[in-house]
Amino acid sequence: SVNPDLASERQTASFSVEKLTAWLDGGAEHTRLRRAVVEAIERDPVFSIENQYFQSQNERYEAAVRKAVHLQKKMQEMGWTDDGPELKYIYRALSGDLAFLLHRIFIRSISVLGSDKQIAKWIPLATQYQLIGSYAQTELGHVFDIATQEFVLNTPNISAMKWWPGDMGRSATHTVVFAQLYINGKCYGVHPFIVQIRSLQDHSLCPGITAGDIGPKMNFEHTDNGYLMLQNVRVPRENMLSKFCEVQPDGTYVRRGSQKINYFTMTTVRISLISDEVVIPLMKACTIAIRYSVVRRQSKLKPGEQEAKILDYQTQQEKLLPQLAAAYAFYFISDYLQELFNRGYREIQRKNFDMLPELHAFSSGFKAMVTQHSTSAVEICLRACGGHGYSLLSGLPSLYTKIVASCLYEGENTILLLQTARFLIKCFMAASTGQPVPPSVTYLAAVTPEKCPAKNKLDFLSPDIYTEAYQHMAARLISSTAAKLQDLIQSGVKKHDAWNQCTVQLAQAAKAHCHYITVKNFAETVEKLETQPGIQKIMKHLCDLFALHGIFSNAGVFLHDGYVSGAQMDMVTASYLDLLAVIRKDAVPLVDAFDFTDKTLNSALGSYDGQVYQRLYEWAQKSPTNKQMSPAYERYLKPLLHKTLSKL
Amino acid sequence: SVNPDLASERQTASFSVEKLTAWLDGGAEHTRLRRAVVEAIERDPVFSIENQYFQSQNERYEAAVRKAVHLQKKMQEMGWTDDGPELKYIYRALSGDLAFLLHRIFIRSISVLGSDKQIAKWIPLATQYQLIGSYAQTELGHVFDIATQEFVLNTPNISAMKWWPGDMGRSATHTVVFAQLYINGKCYGVHPFIVQIRSLQDHSLCPGITAGDIGPKMNFEHTDNGYLMLQNVRVPRENMLSKFCEVQPDGTYVRRGSQKINYFTMTTVRISLISDEVVIPLMKACTIAIRYSVVRRQSKLKPGEQEAKILDYQTQQEKLLPQLAAAYAFYFISDYLQELFNRGYREIQRKNFDMLPELHAFSSGFKAMVTQHSTSAVEICLRACGGHGYSLLSGLPSLYTKIVASCLYEGENTILLLQTARFLIKCFMAASTGQPVPPSVTYLAAVTPEKCPAKNKLDFLSPDIYTEAYQHMAARLISSTAAKLQDLIQSGVKKHDAWNQCTVQLAQAAKAHCHYITVKNFAETVEKLETQPGIQKIMKHLCDLFALHGIFSNAGVFLHDGYVSGAQMDMVTASYLDLLAVIRKDAVPLVDAFDFTDKTLNSALGSYDGQVYQRLYEWAQKSPTNKQMSPAYERYLKPLLHKTLSKL
Repeated sequence: SVNPDLASERQTASFSVEKLTAWLDGGAEHTRLRRAVVEAIERDPVFSIENQYFQSQNERYEAAVRKAVHLQKKMQEMGWTDDGPELKYIYRALSGDLAFLLHRIFIRSISVLGSDKQIAKWIPLATQYQLIGSYAQTELGHVFDIATQEFVLNTPNISAMKWWPGDMGRSATHTVVFAQLYINGKCYGVHPFIVQIRSLQDHSLCPGITAGDIGPKMNFEHTDNGYLMLQNVRVPRENMLSKFCEVQPDGTYVRRGSQKINYFTMTTVRISLISDEVVIPLMKACTIAIRYSVVRRQSKLKPGEQEAKILDYQTQQEKLLPQLAAAYAFYFISDYLQELFNRGYREIQRKNFDMLPELHAFSSGFKAMVTQHSTSAVEICLRACGGHGYSLLSGLPSLYTKIVASCLYEGENTILLLQTARFLIKCFMAASTGQPVPPSVTYLAAVTPEKCPAKNKLDFLSPDIYTEAYQHMAARLISSTAAKLQDLIQSGVKKHDAWNQCTVQLAQAAKAHCHYITVKNFAETVEKLETQPGIQKIMKHLCDLFALHGIFSNAGVFLHDGYVSGAQMDMVTASYLDLLAVIRKDAVPLVDAFDFTDKTLNSALGSYDGQVYQRLYEWAQKSPTNKQMSPAYERYLKPLLHKTLSKL
Repeated sequence: SVNPDLASERQTASFSVEKLTAWLDGGAEHTRLRRAVVEAIERDPVFSIENQYFQSQNERYEAAVRKAVHLQKKMQEMGWTDDGPELKYIYRALSGDLAFLLHRIFIRSISVLGSDKQIAKWIPLATQYQLIGSYAQTELGHVFDIATQEFVLNTPNISAMKWWPGDMGRSATHTVVFAQLYINGKCYGVHPFIVQIRSLQDHSLCPGITAGDIGPKMNFEHTDNGYLMLQNVRVPRENMLSKFCEVQPDGTYVRRGSQKINYFTMTTVRISLISDEVVIPLMKACTIAIRYSVVRRQSKLKPGEQEAKILDYQTQQEKLLPQLAAAYAFYFISDYLQELFNRGYREIQRKNFDMLPELHAFSSGFKAMVTQHSTSAVEICLRACGGHGYSLLSGLPSLYTKIVASCLYEGENTILLLQTARFLIKCFMAASTGQPVPPSVTYLAAVTPEKCPAKNKLDFLSPDIYTEAYQHMAARLISSTAAKLQDLIQSGVKKHDAWNQCTVQLAQAAKAHCHYITVKNFAETVEKLETQPGIQKIMKHLCDLFALHGIFSNAGVFLHDGYVSGAQMDMVTASYLDLLAVIRKDAVPLVDAFDFTDKTLNSALGSYDGQVYQRLYEWAQKSPTNKQMSPAYERYLKPLLHKTLSKL
């Protein structure tokens, strides 16, 4: 039975949850397919994550391998294909708790960079798990030895040891290593090689290989992140992936075509991780925290009444509802980026590489902005559940410890923001001298009013008003930082020093740019919803909330040049706080629309029926800490406690 | 041998690390005692935390019990007393990874609230661990049964089950339960009772008791946080703690003296946790991240040079150095609060309770502000170490997962901030009508200039200038929220609704107040350092950095009413960024001065010698994931990989 406090929230929804879910999925037929895939996965006991919170690192690794091997059979059985729409639903159902994700990148890199012959040799073995690959970008140098027709690989010292590649610690038999290629003392830049690291016979390490598991981590216990050192490891000439370049037997280096496509592959990884590794966990955290916040009652809002649902407190709304708005905002920006990249990929296939700098800047900046914002958001959700959020059984700690990694992998966020900033500064310089710039940054040359025209708090519910404020703010931060950079250089500071002295502000400017594009895209998404007025209305509220929350919490950058006045900031605050109370009413239906099953959420606080306390109690019974009398009692406590028997 | 990059940082210190350490400790004699205690603890193998990162929840609990029992012997052996100065050094050396902390609160509550007879009966048993106590504040009602001279306790339903008390899950034989007392249908408010929950004979649960361990958590695996339900549990009349009130055999209720002292006990817990559970972990995180940031080199700052230490990047400085300044700021405010509370306690012993509201407001607000700020700071330190920060072996994940709990226990932070806000609003009202207010809030009635008088960026290095800016800002937030509250009430909104509609701003105002006091206290601490000019100079830089970082990152509240202009904010930014480069030079000596041993830090990234990569590699070998071939290989991989043997 559903907790009555939670049930009552669903009776007053201002829109159809089913319609919103279908729209988010891109149509009801997608929802049906997704649900069928999720159901098939959840019915299969091999994929159960029920005991996950009680497992050791060893147990989680073993379960992840078992699931990966089983999934391959399951996919054949169900007729699901590797390039079909099912894959992302499978991943969603399994929460990514699966081995061999780096193995997939191993396969992808061979497919993209290998010759036809190499593809024919390696890909069938890899897809059948008849070898397990990993992927390592290192600082190594590879020397070609003409006499033996081999590349010789060496890790120069322990600080150059490769650390972290997934599937490398215990599973992998092979890895793609990217490293500098040297022939006769001349360096030809970074190239990819297939290196065998473990015996196919008995899984022992190959000669010259030092490898193992890096040990316990904050999360990713299911993955055997590994280390790798190479000492005089010899790799046959034909193991250099050679679609775009080759070393001939006599040591002649031949290049064919462009290598730029390499970077594009990494760029797409960044884009796909936003949806799979960031937006979905954020949606889950919002679902758990919001459902719990209408079940949990504490203190009285009005004297004499029963204790209030904690979501009825303004402070609780102010914690959770902006995170809910951000989940929607990032879901939409993720779609937008995916479309942009599909378009870019089509251009690249036509050998038009013009979009590459813009795509690279987008993937870097948004990866950084979305992962950082979402990590904070998940932490807020966890803390908003008080003590119970801190129990692993809430599901929130593991969402947090996993999402925080997204700030670190596939490019550290600050480095990525500075890459975006470099692109923005370049575009700003070009735009100010009238040169053409990519469409996403034409705003840098646009003329906006010097003062925000809003006259009352309702004006700030106009997307034109707030989008323009964001645009003005982003353009100002970019232009003022560009000016500081130029001033420093003109005053004699060397270019690289000047750049370093501006990096705090450059990173801020890059974030502001991404924030502006996210607000603009949200507003445009809402506008296109005119055929579904019920959904459009609530999405408009969320869009307003996302935008005003951003102004409220970054007030300084809007007030700085007087574009927004102190009095206008009070209007923003008033509208922002009003919106909380409006969206509060639909908070539960808005998370229900994400359509997570209880099994996927795996949360004692967040399930659909809201039976929080019953579930916490039942799940705690399953903990190994409740399975036996602790040896600590026999060893340390019993002798002491027995002394008391005669005294009490 | 010390890593040369780290060694060179120590050669250029602008001050004596040893002198700074001694000053922080309160004198060289304290440093000597601390080091002696730490050494004695670290020499004893029972207290080793070497394997902590590889242990299960069961193993950590057992180790914590073992250590607690052993510590008692050790203290006798060493002549360390429970109320001596050694206890906080012991706790620091053990990183709090010790069982029976709630048992200590059990003891404290009996000492404070029990009659002489009760103290004589229970305290000797408890101090010898001949019973293990816990502590539970519940929503229960206790009914007094005159016929049997017993209190009858019942947990009405599962949602009222007590959840979280430490030492309760597996260890405790007794607990102090706070609950409503009913006699003949009349409620007499909250009272404390000693309840036995487990047999002293065989540790089985007593009749009517449901109790157990709540299962896995984000951290605190060493503690058996438990749950408790009571069904018709009968407690003898003499188990109600009766220093301040008693139920006589005929059911007559007698009150003696004030109960206010109860709250004061909880208040002191909040104050002591700031130093033990928050400031020390923050100092550790800074030590680890800053040492690592001079060992780790990445990319080139100048073309043609070797790769740069990552701490030479402005963005890395901007991540870490403000956290270092905050560690110092909070260390000083923690001292300040401790002194204030000692003074308060002396007054209370003289039956003067006047300071209680101020002390309560202080403990609440600072607990919330310092825990929240420090939790973010530790997270920043973790993320600033990139991938390696994410490894448990860095020590940073466990610091984070532990410190985040401090935001949740001993009062949820938002609730605490609103209690401080209530006090501030009351004082503001009093001050504006000329009534006397406690000294810490007289500033609410002070007249400050309407504009910040700073003329150039150097002016912002004047403590008068920035302290006044903080004061102005805090007073403005409090007065404007008080005005909003009054407006709402005057416009007919009911008082409790009006309060709820202001809570987001009230919490912000309370934080601003605490921030102001922290800046002011830091500036005053620096001023008093005139006899030690070397230390004073670097402390002044840190104070400036703490203050300007706060203005830079909360620019909106300073710009809002024009007190600081946009042009002045640019000066703040310039001075702030300049300071980063100045403090950068002393960053390593500034963390060395915290004087943590390598064993206490337990970090592969942060040890004194900076041998990061060697240690990461050696420690990874100890992981259970590297101790054996995984069963996953035999079960799932071998059959697949063997198929490839004939093919490659």
